[in-house]
Amino acid sequence: MKDFPGTPGTLTGLGLRILQCIFAASAITAMATTSSFFDFTAFCYLIASMGLQVVWSFGLALVDAYALVKKDVLNHSFLISLFVVGDWVTAILSLAAASATAGIIVLLTHDLKGNHCLGDCQQYQVSVVLAFLSWITIATSSLIMLWLVAAG
Amino acid sequence: MKDFPGTPGTLTGLGLRILQCIFAASAITAMATTSSFFDFTAFCYLIASMGLQVVWSFGLALVDAYALVKKDVLNHSFLISLFVVGDWVTAILSLAAASATAGIIVLLTHDLKGNHCLGDCQQYQVSVVLAFLSWITIATSSLIMLWLVAAG
Repeated sequence: MKDFPGTPGTLTGLGLRILQCIFAASAITAMATTSSFFDFTAFCYLIASMGLQVVWSFGLALVDAYALVKKDVLNHSFLISLFVVGDWVTAILSLAAASATAGIIVLLTHDLKGNHCLGDCQQYQVSVVLAFLSWITIATSSLIMLWLVAAG
Repeated sequence: MKDFPGTPGTLTGLGLRILQCIFAASAITAMATTSSFFDFTAFCYLIASMGLQVVWSFGLALVDAYALVKKDVLNHSFLISLFVVGDWVTAILSLAAASATAGIIVLLTHDLKGNHCLGDCQQYQVSVVLAFLSWITIATSSLIMLWLVAAG
Protein backbone atom coordinates (compact mmCIF):
# COMPACT_ATOMS: atom_id res chain seq x y z
CA MET A 1 0.00 0.00 0.00
CA LYS A 2 1.36 3.37 -1.04
CA ASP A 3 1.84 6.23 1.39
CA PHE A 4 1.14 9.67 -0.11
CA PRO A 5 -0.27 12.97 1.26
CA GLY A 6 -3.82 12.62 2.56
CA THR A 7 -3.70 8.90 3.41
CA PRO A 8 -4.97 7.95 6.88
CA GLY A 9 -2.41 8.35 9.63
CA THR A 10 -0.58 11.25 7.92
CA LEU A 11 -0.56 14.93 8.92
CA THR A 12 -2.30 15.95 5.64
CA GLY A 13 -4.98 13.31 6.25
CA LEU A 14 -5.58 14.68 9.74
CA GLY A 15 -5.68 18.25 8.36
CA LEU A 16 -8.32 17.29 5.77
CA ARG A 17 -10.49 15.65 8.46
CA ILE A 18 -10.25 18.71 10.72
CA LEU A 19 -11.19 21.01 7.80
CA GLN A 20 -14.22 18.80 7.02
CA CYS A 21 -15.35 19.07 10.65
CA ILE A 22 -14.88 22.84 10.77
CA PHE A 23 -16.72 23.54 7.50
CA ALA A 24 -19.58 21.15 8.30
CA ALA A 25 -20.02 22.48 11.84
CA SER A 26 -19.97 26.08 10.56
CA ALA A 27 -22.58 25.21 7.90
CA ILE A 28 -24.82 23.75 10.61
CA THR A 29 -24.34 26.82 12.83
CA ALA A 30 -25.12 29.26 10.00
CA MET A 31 -28.25 27.32 9.02
CA ALA A 32 -29.53 26.49 12.50
CA THR A 33 -29.38 30.12 13.65
CA THR A 34 -31.84 31.28 10.97
CA SER A 35 -35.41 31.81 12.06
CA SER A 36 -37.18 29.68 9.46
CA PHE A 37 -34.95 26.80 8.32
CA PHE A 38 -37.44 24.23 9.71
CA ASP A 39 -40.01 25.33 7.12
CA PHE A 40 -37.82 23.83 4.36
CA THR A 41 -37.17 20.08 4.15
CA ALA A 42 -33.94 20.65 2.18
CA PHE A 43 -32.51 22.95 4.87
CA CYS A 44 -33.25 20.35 7.58
CA TYR A 45 -31.63 17.71 5.34
CA LEU A 46 -28.53 19.94 5.04
CA ILE A 47 -28.26 20.08 8.83
CA ALA A 48 -28.70 16.28 9.11
CA SER A 49 -26.16 15.60 6.37
CA MET A 50 -23.60 18.04 7.79
CA GLY A 51 -24.21 16.51 11.23
CA LEU A 52 -23.34 13.08 9.87
CA GLN A 53 -20.27 14.65 8.22
CA VAL A 54 -19.08 16.13 11.53
CA VAL A 55 -19.48 12.81 13.37
CA TRP A 56 -17.72 10.80 10.62
CA SER A 57 -14.85 13.26 10.09
CA PHE A 58 -14.32 13.76 13.82
CA GLY A 59 -14.14 10.00 14.32
CA LEU A 60 -11.58 9.62 11.54
CA ALA A 61 -9.61 12.64 12.81
CA LEU A 62 -9.29 10.83 16.16
CA VAL A 63 -8.13 7.65 14.39
CA ASP A 64 -5.58 9.69 12.38
CA ALA A 65 -4.33 11.48 15.48
CA TYR A 66 -3.98 8.15 17.35
CA ALA A 67 -2.04 6.66 14.42
CA LEU A 68 0.21 9.75 14.27
CA VAL A 69 0.96 9.65 18.00
CA LYS A 70 1.60 5.90 18.00
CA LYS A 71 3.51 6.22 14.69
CA ASP A 72 1.32 3.39 13.42
CA VAL A 73 0.55 2.93 9.71
CA LEU A 74 -3.14 2.37 8.97
CA ASN A 75 -2.92 -0.13 6.16
CA HIS A 76 -5.29 -2.92 7.20
CA SER A 77 -7.34 -3.52 4.06
CA PHE A 78 -10.61 -4.01 6.01
CA LEU A 79 -10.16 -0.64 7.75
CA ILE A 80 -9.34 1.16 4.49
CA SER A 81 -12.39 -0.41 2.74
CA LEU A 82 -14.59 0.78 5.60
CA PHE A 83 -13.14 4.31 5.28
CA VAL A 84 -13.72 4.32 1.50
CA VAL A 85 -17.40 3.34 1.83
CA GLY A 86 -18.02 5.86 4.62
CA ASP A 87 -16.20 8.66 2.80
CA TRP A 88 -18.13 8.07 -0.44
CA VAL A 89 -21.50 7.87 1.30
CA THR A 90 -20.92 11.10 3.25
CA ALA A 91 -19.47 12.86 0.18
CA ILE A 92 -22.51 12.00 -1.96
CA LEU A 93 -24.95 13.00 0.80
CA SER A 94 -23.09 16.30 1.35
CA LEU A 95 -23.12 17.22 -2.36
CA ALA A 96 -26.81 16.32 -2.62
CA ALA A 97 -27.71 18.39 0.46
CA ALA A 98 -25.63 21.39 -0.64
CA SER A 99 -27.10 21.29 -4.17
CA ALA A 100 -30.70 20.96 -2.95
CA THR A 101 -30.16 23.90 -0.58
CA ALA A 102 -28.50 25.97 -3.31
CA GLY A 103 -31.41 25.22 -5.68
CA ILE A 104 -33.92 26.48 -3.11
CA ILE A 105 -31.85 29.59 -2.30
CA VAL A 106 -31.75 30.50 -6.02
CA LEU A 107 -35.51 29.94 -6.14
CA LEU A 108 -36.11 32.18 -3.11
CA THR A 109 -33.71 34.98 -4.05
CA HIS A 110 -33.98 35.01 -7.84
CA ASP A 111 -36.92 33.09 -9.33
CA LEU A 112 -39.72 34.13 -6.98
CA LYS A 113 -40.69 37.78 -6.78
CA GLY A 114 -40.75 39.44 -3.35
CA ASN A 115 -38.93 38.67 -0.10
CA HIS A 116 -39.29 34.97 0.69
CA CYS A 117 -36.25 34.56 2.97
CA LEU A 118 -37.64 36.63 5.86
CA GLY A 119 -34.25 38.38 6.15
CA ASP A 120 -32.24 35.15 6.35
CA CYS A 121 -31.03 35.04 2.72
CA GLN A 122 -27.43 35.90 3.49
CA GLN A 123 -27.17 33.33 6.26
CA TYR A 124 -28.60 30.62 3.96
CA GLN A 125 -25.97 31.57 1.37
CA VAL A 126 -23.11 31.43 3.89
CA SER A 127 -24.33 28.01 5.03
CA VAL A 128 -24.46 26.61 1.50
CA VAL A 129 -20.96 27.94 0.65
CA LEU A 130 -19.61 26.26 3.81
CA ALA A 131 -21.43 23.03 2.87
CA PHE A 132 -19.79 23.08 -0.58
CA LEU A 133 -16.36 23.70 1.02
CA SER A 134 -17.01 20.74 3.31
CA TRP A 135 -17.94 18.65 0.27
CA ILE A 136 -14.71 19.64 -1.55
CA THR A 137 -12.59 18.46 1.38
CA ILE A 138 -14.52 15.17 1.85
CA ALA A 139 -14.41 14.55 -1.93
CA THR A 140 -10.62 14.98 -1.83
CA SER A 141 -10.38 12.44 1.00
CA SER A 142 -12.70 10.04 -0.87
CA LEU A 143 -10.61 10.18 -4.04
CA ILE A 144 -7.38 9.60 -2.08
CA MET A 145 -8.94 6.61 -0.27
CA LEU A 146 -10.27 5.07 -3.48
CA TRP A 147 -6.91 5.58 -5.19
CA LEU A 148 -5.25 3.87 -2.22
CA VAL A 149 -7.51 0.82 -2.51
CA ALA A 150 -7.24 0.63 -6.31
CA ALA A 151 -3.46 1.05 -6.30
CA GLY A 152 -3.36 -1.77 -3.72
CA MET B 1 -3.96 -1.80 -17.86
CA LYS B 2 -6.58 -4.24 -16.65
CA ASP B 3 -9.60 -5.22 -18.73
CA PHE B 4 -12.78 -5.77 -16.68
CA PRO B 5 -16.52 -5.20 -17.32
CA GLY B 6 -17.37 -1.58 -18.02
CA THR B 7 -13.96 -0.50 -19.35
CA PRO B 8 -14.00 1.44 -22.65
CA GLY B 9 -14.20 -0.73 -25.72
CA THR B 10 -16.17 -3.52 -23.99
CA LEU B 11 -19.82 -4.47 -24.46
CA THR B 12 -20.67 -3.56 -20.82
CA GLY B 13 -18.98 -0.18 -21.31
CA LEU B 14 -21.06 0.47 -24.41
CA GLY B 15 -24.22 -0.65 -22.57
CA LEU B 16 -23.54 1.79 -19.71
CA ARG B 17 -23.04 4.67 -22.17
CA ILE B 18 -26.28 3.87 -23.99
CA LEU B 19 -28.19 3.71 -20.67
CA GLN B 20 -26.74 7.11 -19.68
CA CYS B 21 -27.95 8.59 -22.98
CA ILE B 22 -31.43 7.08 -22.67
CA PHE B 23 -31.98 8.19 -19.05
CA ALA B 24 -30.62 11.70 -19.65
CA ALA B 25 -32.62 12.21 -22.86
CA SER B 26 -35.79 10.95 -21.12
CA ALA B 27 -35.19 13.32 -18.18
CA ILE B 28 -34.86 16.23 -20.63
CA THR B 29 -38.05 15.18 -22.46
CA ALA B 30 -40.06 14.84 -19.23
CA MET B 31 -38.87 18.24 -17.98
CA ALA B 32 -39.04 20.15 -21.27
CA THR B 33 -42.63 19.13 -21.93
CA THR B 34 -43.89 20.77 -18.71
CA SER B 35 -45.55 24.16 -19.08
CA SER B 36 -43.51 26.10 -16.54
CA PHE B 37 -40.00 24.66 -16.19
CA PHE B 38 -38.45 27.93 -17.43
CA ASP B 39 -39.71 29.73 -14.31
CA PHE B 40 -37.24 27.71 -12.22
CA THR B 41 -33.47 28.15 -12.63
CA ALA B 42 -32.80 24.66 -11.21
CA PHE B 43 -35.09 23.00 -13.77
CA CYS B 44 -33.31 24.81 -16.64
CA TYR B 45 -29.98 23.73 -15.10
CA LEU B 46 -31.24 20.11 -15.05
CA ILE B 47 -31.97 20.32 -18.77
CA ALA B 48 -28.53 21.87 -19.48
CA SER B 49 -26.74 19.29 -17.35
CA MET B 50 -28.63 16.33 -18.86
CA GLY B 51 -27.95 17.80 -22.32
CA LEU B 52 -24.22 17.78 -21.61
CA GLN B 53 -24.60 14.21 -20.33
CA VAL B 54 -26.30 13.08 -23.56
CA VAL B 55 -23.57 14.67 -25.74
CA TRP B 56 -20.71 13.23 -23.65
CA SER B 57 -22.20 9.73 -23.31
CA PHE B 58 -23.21 9.56 -26.96
CA GLY B 59 -19.67 10.54 -28.00
CA LEU B 60 -18.15 7.85 -25.79
CA ALA B 61 -20.74 5.29 -26.97
CA LEU B 62 -19.54 5.94 -30.54
CA VAL B 63 -15.89 5.51 -29.45
CA ASP B 64 -16.80 2.25 -27.64
CA ALA B 65 -18.72 0.95 -30.67
CA TYR B 66 -15.82 1.80 -32.99
CA ALA B 67 -13.37 0.02 -30.67
CA LEU B 68 -15.67 -3.03 -30.50
CA VAL B 69 -16.06 -3.23 -34.29
CA LYS B 70 -12.32 -2.77 -34.91
CA LYS B 71 -11.53 -5.12 -31.97
CA ASP B 72 -9.22 -2.38 -30.73
CA VAL B 73 -8.33 -1.99 -27.04
CA LEU B 74 -8.62 1.58 -25.76
CA ASN B 75 -5.70 1.74 -23.38
CA HIS B 76 -3.88 4.91 -24.37
CA SER B 77 -3.27 6.60 -21.03
CA PHE B 78 -3.99 10.11 -22.39
CA LEU B 79 -7.37 8.96 -23.71
CA ILE B 80 -8.28 7.24 -20.43
CA SER B 81 -7.29 10.33 -18.41
CA LEU B 82 -9.51 12.47 -20.64
CA PHE B 83 -12.41 10.03 -20.12
CA VAL B 84 -11.89 10.08 -16.32
CA VAL B 85 -12.00 13.90 -16.13
CA GLY B 86 -15.05 14.13 -18.40
CA ASP B 87 -16.89 11.36 -16.56
CA TRP B 88 -16.28 12.92 -13.14
CA VAL B 89 -17.28 16.41 -14.27
CA THR B 90 -20.54 15.20 -15.84
CA ALA B 91 -21.28 12.90 -12.87
CA ILE B 92 -20.88 15.75 -10.35
CA LEU B 93 -22.96 18.13 -12.48
CA SER B 94 -25.69 15.48 -12.89
CA LEU B 95 -25.92 14.77 -9.16
CA ALA B 96 -25.98 18.50 -8.36
CA ALA B 97 -28.73 19.16 -10.93
CA ALA B 98 -30.83 16.17 -9.83
CA SER B 99 -30.50 17.14 -6.14
CA ALA B 100 -31.34 20.81 -6.74
CA THR B 101 -34.41 19.77 -8.75
CA ALA B 102 -35.45 17.23 -6.10
CA GLY B 103 -35.09 19.90 -3.39
CA ILE B 104 -37.40 22.25 -5.27
CA ILE B 105 -39.95 19.51 -6.01
CA VAL B 106 -40.12 18.65 -2.28
CA LEU B 107 -40.57 22.37 -1.56
CA LEU B 108 -43.38 22.69 -4.12
CA THR B 109 -45.23 19.50 -3.27
CA HIS B 110 -44.67 19.24 0.49
CA ASP B 111 -43.34 22.39 2.21
CA LEU B 112 -45.49 25.06 0.56
CA LYS B 113 -49.23 24.97 1.03
CA GLY B 114 -51.43 25.04 -2.08
CA ASN B 115 -50.80 23.95 -5.66
CA HIS B 116 -47.52 25.45 -6.90
CA CYS B 117 -46.75 22.96 -9.70
CA LEU B 118 -49.59 24.06 -11.99
CA GLY B 119 -50.41 20.39 -12.66
CA ASP B 120 -46.85 19.44 -13.62
CA CYS B 121 -45.79 17.85 -10.32
CA GLN B 122 -45.81 14.28 -11.60
CA GLN B 123 -43.78 15.14 -14.68
CA TYR B 124 -41.17 16.96 -12.54
CA GLN B 125 -40.93 13.85 -10.36
CA VAL B 126 -40.50 11.51 -13.35
CA SER B 127 -37.78 13.81 -14.70
CA VAL B 128 -35.85 13.85 -11.43
CA VAL B 129 -36.05 10.05 -11.05
CA LEU B 130 -34.66 9.66 -14.59
CA ALA B 131 -31.91 12.19 -13.78
CA PHE B 132 -30.91 10.15 -10.70
CA LEU B 133 -30.88 6.94 -12.79
CA SER B 134 -28.66 8.71 -15.31
CA TRP B 135 -26.37 9.79 -12.45
CA ILE B 136 -26.14 6.19 -11.12
CA THR B 137 -24.98 4.92 -14.52
CA ILE B 138 -22.46 7.74 -15.07
CA ALA B 139 -21.17 7.33 -11.48
CA THR B 140 -20.60 3.62 -12.20
CA SER B 141 -18.63 4.51 -15.34
CA SER B 142 -16.63 7.15 -13.42
CA LEU B 143 -15.65 4.69 -10.68
CA ILE B 144 -14.60 2.07 -13.24
CA MET B 145 -12.49 4.64 -15.14
CA LEU B 146 -10.80 5.92 -11.97
CA TRP B 147 -10.11 2.35 -10.85
CA LEU B 148 -8.59 1.67 -14.26
CA VAL B 149 -6.22 4.65 -13.99
CA ALA B 150 -5.29 3.95 -10.35
CA ALA B 151 -4.71 0.23 -11.00
CA GLY B 152 -2.48 1.32 -13.91
